[in-house]
Order: sequence, then structure tokens, then C-alpha cells
Amino acid sequence: MKYDVVVIGGSAAGVPAATTAKKMNKEKSVLVIRKEPESLIPCGIPYVFGTLNNTEDDINPTTNAKKVGVEFLIDEVSSVNTDSKLISTIGGETVEYDKLVFATGSQPFVPPIPGFDLNGVYRIGKEFDYIDSIREPLKKSKNVVIIGAGFIGVEMADELVKVVKDVTLIEAMDTILPLAFDPDMISPVQKELVNHGVDVRINVMVDKIIGEGGSVSGVVLKTGEEIKADAVIMAIGYRPNTVLAKESGLEIGQFGGIKTDEYLRTEVDGVFAVGDCAEHIDFFTRKVSRVMLASTAASEARVAALNLFKLRVIRQTKGSIAIFSSSIDTISMGAAGLTEKFAKIENFDYIVGEAGGMDHHPGKLPETYKQRVKLLFTSGTCVLIGAQIIGGKSTGEMINILGLAIQKGMTAAELSIIQYGTQPTLTAGPGAYPIVLASVDALSQMHQK
Amino acid sequence: MKYDVVVIGGSAAGVPAATTAKKMNKEKSVLVIRKEPESLIPCGIPYVFGTLNNTEDDINPTTNAKKVGVEFLIDEVSSVNTDSKLISTIGGETVEYDKLVFATGSQPFVPPIPGFDLNGVYRIGKEFDYIDSIREPLKKSKNVVIIGAGFIGVEMADELVKVVKDVTLIEAMDTILPLAFDPDMISPVQKELVNHGVDVRINVMVDKIIGEGGSVSGVVLKTGEEIKADAVIMAIGYRPNTVLAKESGLEIGQFGGIKTDEYLRTEVDGVFAVGDCAEHIDFFTRKVSRVMLASTAASEARVAALNLFKLRVIRQTKGSIAIFSSSIDTISMGAAGLTEKFAKIENFDYIVGEAGGMDHHPGKLPETYKQRVKLLFTSGTCVLIGAQIIGGKSTGEMINILGLAIQKGMTAAELSIIQYGTQPTLTAGPGAYPIVLASVDALSQMHQK
Repeated sequence: MKYDVVVIGGSAAGVPAATTAKKMNKEKSVLVIRKEPESLIPCGIPYVFGTLNNTEDDINPTTNAKKVGVEFLIDEVSSVNTDSKLISTIGGETVEYDKLVFATGSQPFVPPIPGFDLNGVYRIGKEFDYIDSIREPLKKSKNVVIIGAGFIGVEMADELVKVVKDVTLIEAMDTILPLAFDPDMISPVQKELVNHGVDVRINVMVDKIIGEGGSVSGVVLKTGEEIKADAVIMAIGYRPNTVLAKESGLEIGQFGGIKTDEYLRTEVDGVFAVGDCAEHIDFFTRKVSRVMLASTAASEARVAALNLFKLRVIRQTKGSIAIFSSSIDTISMGAAGLTEKFAKIENFDYIVGEAGGMDHHPGKLPETYKQRVKLLFTSGTCVLIGAQIIGGKSTGEMINILGLAIQKGMTAAELSIIQYGTQPTLTAGPGAYPIVLASVDALSQMHQK
Repeated sequence: MKYDVVVIGGSAAGVPAATTAKKMNKEKSVLVIRKEPESLIPCGIPYVFGTLNNTEDDINPTTNAKKVGVEFLIDEVSSVNTDSKLISTIGGETVEYDKLVFATGSQPFVPPIPGFDLNGVYRIGKEFDYIDSIREPLKKSKNVVIIGAGFIGVEMADELVKVVKDVTLIEAMDTILPLAFDPDMISPVQKELVNHGVDVRINVMVDKIIGEGGSVSGVVLKTGEEIKADAVIMAIGYRPNTVLAKESGLEIGQFGGIKTDEYLRTEVDGVFAVGDCAEHIDFFTRKVSRVMLASTAASEARVAALNLFKLRVIRQTKGSIAIFSSSIDTISMGAAGLTEKFAKIENFDYIVGEAGGMDHHPGKLPETYKQRVKLLFTSGTCVLIGAQIIGGKSTGEMINILGLAIQKGMTAAELSIIQYGTQPTLTAGPGAYPIVLASVDALSQMHQK
């Protein structure tokens, strides 16, 4: 077989890479090689345990990819010869390529703490069969302990507490979602989790997982306290899947990601890497970043796909911005860029602008929720470097406004006078629009400096 | 009395102007003079007839303005002497000012068609007492005809149909919301209105309103058809309130708005004008624009307020972009910039990019709705000039992403590779994010040109 473009991996990075490549180059042939006939939407996985209550409804559709003409080979790549531009698969196929995109993703990181290999200790992998297989055992558990209160940990806790008697969420840092939020902003979400019945433990370190007869029976903290558990979920984070990339001779960076340039090109001719398997550079510091997000993956996939044959879409941002969002029932949270904690670690001199109000106007309209916006600007240049929102369901798109403002290097002054639309049933009021008010708040502090 | 800053009018433009002025200049005294002790949130008015079912819940809070130290005088300005910088009020006060901001707003335009002065013919003014007085008569009506299917007309129709037997919505142009949307995009909203029971008539002109014994009994169309009505609402549009401005010697523009420069300064020393009473310049053509929006008013109010004493926040956009949003039950719509219709009228050569999908992912999650994005880019420079969205409740903030992209002069290429956040319960999927896919769609057409 011979294809102009071959993408290895067909999830959050691979499918957009292939679809965009084909859409932009209709005369080129594009193939995705992936292991699973049906793959899960990674960010939807927590919901298969509660809200959706099945795995089938979380399948990532490939309809659009197939409609534009992307082909799929369900197989596993065993080796890549980058000199002869040939791929071999476990199924015995040989595929010749002109351009090759690694989109091999990531897998859960399981630290080797004692007891990590007991029965009943789960990780949130992304394979359909694995997730399907742990659904029933998890739902039948009585005491679930989740280690790690990142987005997966928090969402798993909130979903499982709907079906399981006792759910404990353990976090070593001083807040849930510590990479995305400052404690002052996220505390209402933490309270809401507790209201839902989750036992949230912050500033707590796990010593070991203990078991009886090979199955987990509890989690022991560094303090000596033991928490009963018949299931434990390790939600510590993910690591790049780069075994194949290493074997293919690609250079691997400090945190295990495939090294690429600005256009996701590796040093090997015609070979690109996008998404969780690639190394990301932080937008603010140009240091290597460990953040992995499906949206970042899709964005990188497009940068690579638009520039496969010639560099024709110049990248204008200088690295990856983590843009997060999630919701717990009626309370939603969004974050983009730096928190105060990380701004301090990196020694930024910054000003905080804040504003709050209601997400509809008047506030007496039905389904109206509080919203609060916190913005970080550099003191010197007054440029936006961080944003956090707690609010209603519109938070997910509001944080994208601020993500865009960060990418465009917007200042507090500029954001104070942006034009925007407001509507009673959809947004805060025109005079109370919190993105603008938080910017004015920061600006007023700068003028007093 | 003597104040550093006096604002005449205390609604969508006046209150943000005063609040921002005070927040930025804590040592200055700021006074708002307005007629009503409590003023309504203008955009919330349709909801007092149905959803809210009272007028009190639509009162615009002045808590924040008062908290920062803005003072209020409930009175009406009778004259302004801009030479001596003195204001006289009907209540007998004389107020000296250093800086004066006109924020006198607008009033409904009622064309002098026969019968416009019959009992039972209403306009959607913004005064608390007037709106309160027409609430009961309107709710008791059996057949309401609304003339004009702009946002107020559409929202009034959808609210009244909840409480009134027959509601007819009449529009002279070829679609509802003709200033904001192309027919291909807005047709699902029109269908939804019909599903709710509204008799929607497009491409229809009104000849006259007829009555019996001084009260309205029907509306006669240019075709001769008569529609029965015991109440008629004129929702044709608004005109600037500039009687006082004229008497004060300010220059009035082509469509009746107070003429200002880039920083909302009139030609008279120390006098500014913001919001509906001021003349607006269109972002794309630099022609005078007739669009009046509370959000535009608030944005202009901040431009003026930040620059009252010295120009310190440079305006970076070149005019007003209309950014609209609204919702009819579970279907929401947003628009920013030019529609195809207006792009053609102004002779823009443009490319349309489109994309659709679901507003959550997977689409099987509860409360998931279809969304569709249509973007207009100039063919030559590939710059975004228009955006329309039909979708779920997140549409209100999504259109603000595109409004910002228009303000920043973003191109299809740039929007194709933006970074954004996605989350199952809040947004479309990372690979299906419609703003990006519509941009890629446009880009792929440009490459084929």
C-alpha cells in the first residue's frame, strides 16, 4: 500500500490531523492506522460510569473523516523505517508514506507505590475494551478511593458518587485541580463536590495501597490513616506513548515527548508528531510543559496538517496555553494560562483583576448562576497571562474568549474596551460583563501604581 | 452642586460610564442624573411579560455604582450651558461640571402609519412605569400583532405566546432578525417560533392599523389582508434621544445621533456622548451605523470614562461591530459583523466557511443541542468579517469569541490553528470545534481559488 499521508493513532490528535490534511489536499491519499475499530472520546470517559451509563455512547465518530475521504486501517504499527519511508504492521501490512504523523497519544502514569498492582486498582486508560471491562466492577464497589484531583479525578469522583456509596478523592497539593486554579477560585467547586457526597482530602499524601488475598482493601496515608477501599483509581496523570517513536529513531525530550519544531516537524524528514505523544513548549516561559489536553492535541494536529507539504499557515503563538474547563452539576469552571501559584513560581510580577456577578441578567431569570472571573496581567506590559472563571454552563466558551485574548497578547486596557454581545438569557448584563470589569479592576490598580 | 463628572442618563450607557469614571479616578466626584429612581434592564423587558411575569425583577441594580462612590440625582435636566459648564434641572437644581457625559439613550421609533395612535397600539419603551402599565392590557389581549421581527419583536412574540392566545409577527424583509442573520442560518429559529404558536409572516408590509371606537381592531397588510388584533406592538426600531443635546448646541449626525470623535468626545469642550444617543461608525465600512445595542453602549461608556481627563486608553478598533445574541427556549442564536446580505450590499468579495455538530461531546450527553457556525472572510486578505451561530445556550459567549476575532482582524488561517478548551458537558469536541472547522472550511476554498 502507498499513501501520501499516514497518521499513526486515531484519537483526539490523529483524526483531526488526517481530516484536515485530506480537506486541504483533496488529491492526496490519507490513511489512519489505529488499533481499535471504535475509539472512545477520551474526555467523555468519566461520563460512561454515571451520566451515560454505557461505553457505546462515548464512541468518537469518524463519519466526518470518512466523508472527506480519509481511510482507516485497523492494525498496529510494529516498525517504521524512516529511510525507506516504510511502515510495517503486526497484521503483516507494509505501507509506504510520503508524510508520516505520529499521533500515538498517552497512557496513564502509575507510580510504583506499594500495592499499585493489586486487583481493584484501576487507571483511567483510553482503550474501549479496558474501560468497558472496569465499568461493572467499579459500579459494584462500595468504597472507591481516587488518587489525584486533576480533571479526570474530579470528574470521576462526581460521576462515581452517583452510583457508589463512598467516594474519597485524595490530592497531595493544597486544592483540587491544582494545575488550573488557585484555591480562592476553586473552593466553591470543592464545596459542591462535598455536597454531592465526595470525601475530598487535600494536602494529603498516599503511603501505600494495601490488600487482602491479592485484592485491594484500603489506602494508607503518610499520616498513617487508613481509608477503606474495595477499588482504587490512580488519576495521577499521563505519559507520552513513544515506544514506537523511540524505536523509529525520533528524538525524545525531557518529559518523554517526541521533540518537534514550531510546525510539529521532527528532525526526521517527512515525519511529524502531534498531541500527547509530542513535547509541548509553554506559551509563557518557553519551557517544556507537561500539560496534555485533547484540545491542544487537535490544535497541533491542524498546525501539522496545514503545513505537511509546504509551510503555508504560519504559527503565530509561541507555545501551548493550557485551556481547561469542566463542570460539576450546575457549577462550571474554566482556566487558561497561569495561576497565581505558577506565576509566583516563575517569578512573574503581576496584577490581579477580579469581578463577579450573575451569568444572566436580570439575575431573577431562571437557571441563573453566579459567575466570577479572575485575570492575571503582567505589571510591566499589562498583558493577560492567566484567567480563571467559576460560573454557569457558559464558562466553557467564556474561557475560550480569554484563551484567545492570551494568544493575541491583549492588555488590560484593550480588554477594558472590547466590544461584546450580551443577552438576558445567555450572558451577564452589558454593564456587568465580568471579563471587562475584571480588566477595568486591574487597570485601576495599574494607574494607582 | 459641583461635580467633576456628571452623566446625564443612568441606563446601559450611563451607569457603566459613571462607575468606570469613579473606579479609575477615586479622587473625582461623579454624579448620575436620571429621571427614574429605578430603571429597567432594557434587554430584559420582553421577559417581564412572560418568564419573569413582573416588572420589579427586571430592575437594573445600581449597587455596584453606589459602592464605588457614584452619586445619583433623580431629576430631569432642563438645560445645559456648555460655556459656563452649568446644568439646570426641572427640580430646580444647578449642577456645575468639569466633564459631562450624555447618555440619554433612545426611544422607540413609531412610523406615522394610519392608526398608529389608536388605543391598544404599544411601543416597547424603556420606562418602568410605561412598561408596567402595558403589562396587564397586553396579557389580557387575545390577538396580538407585532410589527417588526428584530430582536425585540422576536423576543416579545416568544414571551407573549406563553400568555396570549394568538400572536402574529410581521416582518417586511425576507427573514426574521434580518439585520443579524442570513435566512439559511436563522430558519430553524423561525420554525421554532412557529412551533411555539407564533404566526410568523415574512416579506409582508403593513398598510394601516384599523380600529373601532378609538381602539385597535386589526392590522391591514399591503395585500389587503386583515389580521385581527386587540393589541399591536410597534417594534420597528429606536431613535436617539437628542432633544437636550440639540438644545445644548451639540452637533447631530445623519441618523440623529450626537457626533463624536474616536474617544466619544463631542466638539464641545469637556462634553462626551455615549450609547444609543451617540452616532456610531461601522467597523467595516466607516459609514454611520444605525445599530443600537446595550453592549455597544457599555463598551463606548468605558472608552469615554477611561479617557475623560487624559486619553490614556487608546481605542484600537475602528468602529462599532454589532454583536447580537438571543434565545428561543432551547435554541440560541448569535451574530457578529456582516451577514452575506450586507456583505453583498457593500460589495465585499467574500468566502463562506461553515461547520456544524453538537454543542456537547459525546452528543448523547443530556441537554446536548445542534450547533452550526457560518463565517465570512474577505477573499483577498482572508480576514474575518462576519459570524453567525445557531446552537445551545453557549452561543451567547461563543459569538463573543468571534466578535473578538473580528476586532483583532484575525484571518481564516489564524483561526484554523487557534488554541481553545473543550469539555464534554460544555462544548463541542476537540476535533469538531465548529469555529475552527468553519475556518478550515474557508481556508480549503481559498487554497483552491
